[in-house]
Amino acid sequence: MQSWDTVAIIGVGLLGGSIGLALRKRKLAKNVVGIGRRRSSLAKAKELGCITQTSLTIRRGVAQAELVIVCTPVDLIALQAEEAAGFCASGAIITDVGSIKAQIVRAAEPTVLAASRGKAHFIGSHPIAGSEKTGPESARADLLHGRVVVMTPTARTDGAAYARLAALWEALGAKVLNLSPDEHDAALACTSHLPHLLAGALAVATPAERTRLCGNGWRDTTRIAAGDVDLWRQILTANATHTLKALDDFERVLARFRAALEAGDGPALAELLAEGKQRRDAVGS
Amino acid sequence: MQSWDTVAIIGVGLLGGSIGLALRKRKLAKNVVGIGRRRSSLAKAKELGCITQTSLTIRRGVAQAELVIVCTPVDLIALQAEEAAGFCASGAIITDVGSIKAQIVRAAEPTVLAASRGKAHFIGSHPIAGSEKTGPESARADLLHGRVVVMTPTARTDGAAYARLAALWEALGAKVLNLSPDEHDAALACTSHLPHLLAGALAVATPAERTRLCGNGWRDTTRIAAGDVDLWRQILTANATHTLKALDDFERVLARFRAALEAGDGPALAELLAEGKQRRDAVGS
Repeated sequence: MQSWDTVAIIGVGLLGGSIGLALRKRKLAKNVVGIGRRRSSLAKAKELGCITQTSLTIRRGVAQAELVIVCTPVDLIALQAEEAAGFCASGAIITDVGSIKAQIVRAAEPTVLAASRGKAHFIGSHPIAGSEKTGPESARADLLHGRVVVMTPTARTDGAAYARLAALWEALGAKVLNLSPDEHDAALACTSHLPHLLAGALAVATPAERTRLCGNGWRDTTRIAAGDVDLWRQILTANATHTLKALDDFERVLARFRAALEAGDGPALAELLAEGKQRRDAVGS
Repeated sequence: MQSWDTVAIIGVGLLGGSIGLALRKRKLAKNVVGIGRRRSSLAKAKELGCITQTSLTIRRGVAQAELVIVCTPVDLIALQAEEAAGFCASGAIITDVGSIKAQIVRAAEPTVLAASRGKAHFIGSHPIAGSEKTGPESARADLLHGRVVVMTPTARTDGAAYARLAALWEALGAKVLNLSPDEHDAALACTSHLPHLLAGALAVATPAERTRLCGNGWRDTTRIAAGDVDLWRQILTANATHTLKALDDFERVLARFRAALEAGDGPALAELLAEGKQRRDAVGS
């Protein structure tokens, strides 16, 4: 695996911090520049070994970067990718880790090319390695190990840049999966955005005076409802169409559970529960 | 805390095993008889220190018992309590750990009195300490530590027996909460039975070909769908009315999330997500 001279990470939280830590631990990058707005957070990330240098501005931070990884909330990604494109090294690759892809890729792909005069490439990525934890303190060098990273190239994606970026994710221990931005968003609506909606709705629907009777089952089922409100507002709004489609499908299944319960039909209920258990067991812990 | 001479536990799985382990570790009972149908499972529980004696029949197992704790699937509890009542020591207390209470208490309270000729008392209990793990191998002496045990006395419950049983749960580290059987079932429909239904429905609604894109959020949200199918068929069927009511309430909240998404109303969505986060944060990990 070819190593990188300078990688810039915009937003050094759990994911950005973990990528920096892994890049350094595996000696894949000589310099890792952390870019953020808060001095204290950058200092913490540097102290923890996630990054080697810090910058409060994208302009300065990406100046030597051959690779820029944008790890900020989804609403900021396309704009920051465009800004980075104006100042990074010629031939640089710009990618992101956002949980939605169509809107970001549609916006960032042309503006990155334009801002860099064709010298930088934007390729969307999404490491499936979220957590309700946040901040560089939670960063782990093995966060991507065994995880899937979805890459979403388009007809305009540079083949060599794609290969180089895919090799990087694999060097960090991930398996790369290639989907179109829209396929990604449709799949993640089912596997991540709808679960978030349901966890939130279940938490809201639980009367406050009954929460002392919440056990581990409720805690697991609602855990992601503790996630960052603004981040999830952005994700769900950006992927509303696919999430609503996933919600339609879910509600059809839920209606089957309801019908079995209403009819007192034990065998039908057991069949549904068995189907759910089979699907869940197949994914594992 | 007064200790017990002989306690019998019918069904030595995670919960029965953990109670046995805790009784012995805290020197609350001299003898703990494990009663079950499988010799190998009883031998395992004894080897692990959960019980001191074993019995394949309720008749023999409860012969010296002042306290019988029925830890079997909910459909068996009332019948086994009645059987135990015919053979246990005079003045014995019989309780259970089932996840539903109204049906069990309604059935067991009169039959225990009748079978024991008024010499044994049935009092319903429900330790909120479930897990998707099963078997005595998963037993932990501190399983009830800091957990809530709901006790569901009725107008016919013997006061001294109630006090003695409540003191036992507290000696095992739990906090006792007193609810009517019906109040218990209405509350648990919200905090446990509905979450199970939703986890199952979400697992079923997730297309198999998309499960490779399931991250930690999906894993948490669906974890309890891996639970025992027959046990949950029993619980949901027995508590269908309250669970359907909880489902109605949930669907009203879900419709608010849907409306916000359909309208692209970011502030309304953020408000709902914030309400869910607040409720979830209040319960803690």
